[in-house]
Amino acid sequence: MSWLPSLKTATPEEGYELAIKLSRMAVKKTQPDDAARERMRPDYANNADSLTQVSLVVATNFQTVAKANDYWKS
Amino acid sequence: MSWLPSLKTATPEEGYELAIKLSRMAVKKTQPDDAARERMRPDYANNADSLTQVSLVVATNFQTVAKANDYWKS
Amino acid sequence: MSWLPSLKTATPEEGYELAIKLSRMAVKKTQPDDAARERMRPDYANNADSLTQVSLVVATNFQTVAKANDYWKS
Amino acid sequence: MSWLPSLKTATPEEGYELAIKLSRMAVKKTQPDDAARERMRPDYANNADSLTQVSLVVATNFQTVAKANDYWKS
Amino acid sequence: MSWLPSLKTATPEEGYELAIKLSRMAVKKTQPDDAARERMRPDYANNADSLTQVSLVVATNFQTVAKANDYWKS
Amino acid sequence: MSWLPSLKTATPEEGYELAIKLSRMAVKKTQPDDAARERMRPDYANNADSLTQVSLVVATNFQTVAKANDYWKS
Repeated sequence: MSWLPSLKTATPEEGYELAIKLSRMAVKKTQPDDAARERMRPDYANNADSLTQVSLVVATNFQTVAKANDYWKS
Repeated sequence: MSWLPSLKTATPEEGYELAIKLSRMAVKKTQPDDAARERMRPDYANNADSLTQVSLVVATNFQTVAKANDYWKS
Repeated sequence: MSWLPSLKTATPEEGYELAIKLSRMAVKKTQPDDAARERMRPDYANNADSLTQVSLVVATNFQTVAKANDYWKS
Repeated sequence: MSWLPSLKTATPEEGYELAIKLSRMAVKKTQPDDAARERMRPDYANNADSLTQVSLVVATNFQTVAKANDYWKS
Repeated sequence: MSWLPSLKTATPEEGYELAIKLSRMAVKKTQPDDAARERMRPDYANNADSLTQVSLVVATNFQTVAKANDYWKS
Repeated sequence: MSWLPSLKTATPEEGYELAIKLSRMAVKKTQPDDAARERMRPDYANNADSLTQVSLVVATNFQTVAKANDYWKS
C-alpha cells in the first residue's frame, strides 16, 4: 500500500495532517535511519526558529493539499 | 469539534487570524509540550529575524486562506 | 474598524503598501509590545540579510494582494 | 508619478527587471536611509548565501509579474 | 534520454519521488562533483535544520508536480 | 538579443535549465563583477545548506517556467 494513495481528504483538519506527513516524508527519505532522526528531535523541538521553519514547510505542503481538495468548499 | 472545521471566514481579518492559527498549529503538533513552547517564547518574540520568519509562515498560510475565500471578493 | 477591511486596492502601489502592512501585522501580533519591537528595529534595519528576509515576506504577501486585485489589469 | 504604475511589461526581460525593483523596494521602505543601505552593500554582494536569498526574493516577485503578464504568451 | 521527460506521473507517490529528484538535480548541477556531494552528506543528513530546508525544497517542487498532474484527481 | 526572449521551452528539461538561468541572473545583477562571483563559488558549492538554498530558488523559478509552459502537457 502506498503511503500517499491520494491527496484527497475528507476534512481540512485531515488535510493539515496530510501536509505534516508530506513534510516529514522528505526528511525520512533523506535520512532513512530512524535512530538518527530520533536523536535530532530535541534539536528542533526545543528551538523556536527550527519550529518556525517546520511550520513553513507544513504551510507550503498545506497549500498543495488544500488546492487538491478545492479548499473543501463543496 | 475540529480545530479547523473550514477555511471559510467572514472577513479578511478573520482569515488572517486563521492563517496565524494554522502557523501555530504546526509548531504545537511538533512540540506538544505547552511548557516547552512557553519557555521558547522570549527567544523568538525578542528576535527580529525570528519574527520575520514567523511572518513568512503566516504569509504562506494567508495565501491559502485568501484563495479558499476567493479573496473575499463577493 | 478592521485593520484589513478588504484586499482590494485602487493601484499596484497601494497593493504593495498593503503587502507591507500584512507583513508587519504578523510581527505585531506575535510581539504586541510596541517598545520591544522598536528596540529590535536597528537589528534588522542595519542588517542586509534581515532586510532581504523582510523583502521575501513582502513578496509573498504581494502575491496574495496582486491576485486579489486580478493584477490591476482592468 | 507612481514607482509602480502597472505590473505589465512589454517583455519577459523587462518583467524580470520589475521583479528586481519590487524586491529592492521592500528593503528601501524598511531602511529608507540611502547611506545606510549603501554601507550594507558589500555585506551581501560578497556573500554567496546572501546573494542566494536575494535571488529567492526576485524569484518570488517574478512569479507575480509573470502571472500578471500571462507569461507573455500572446 | 532526458532525466526529465515529463512532469506526469501515474500516482501521487511517484509525483513525490519526482519532486525529490527535481530538488536534488539543482544541487547536482551546481556541484557536479559526485565525491564532493557525497562528502557533504553527513553535514545535512545529521542536522535537523538542514533536513527541514531540504523538505521545504521538496514541498516547493511537489507543488509544481502536483499541479502538472491536476492533483491526480481523475 | 535578450537573455530572456521567452519563458517557453520545448521540453521540461529545457524549462529546468531556464529556471537555473533565472536563479543565477538575480545573483549576477546584484553582483555584476564576474571575478567576485567566481571567488564565492567554493563557498556555496561545498556547503550543503548553501546548495539546498540554491535548490529552493531553482524550485521557485521552475514553478514559474512550468506554469508558463502549461506543464508541457500538450
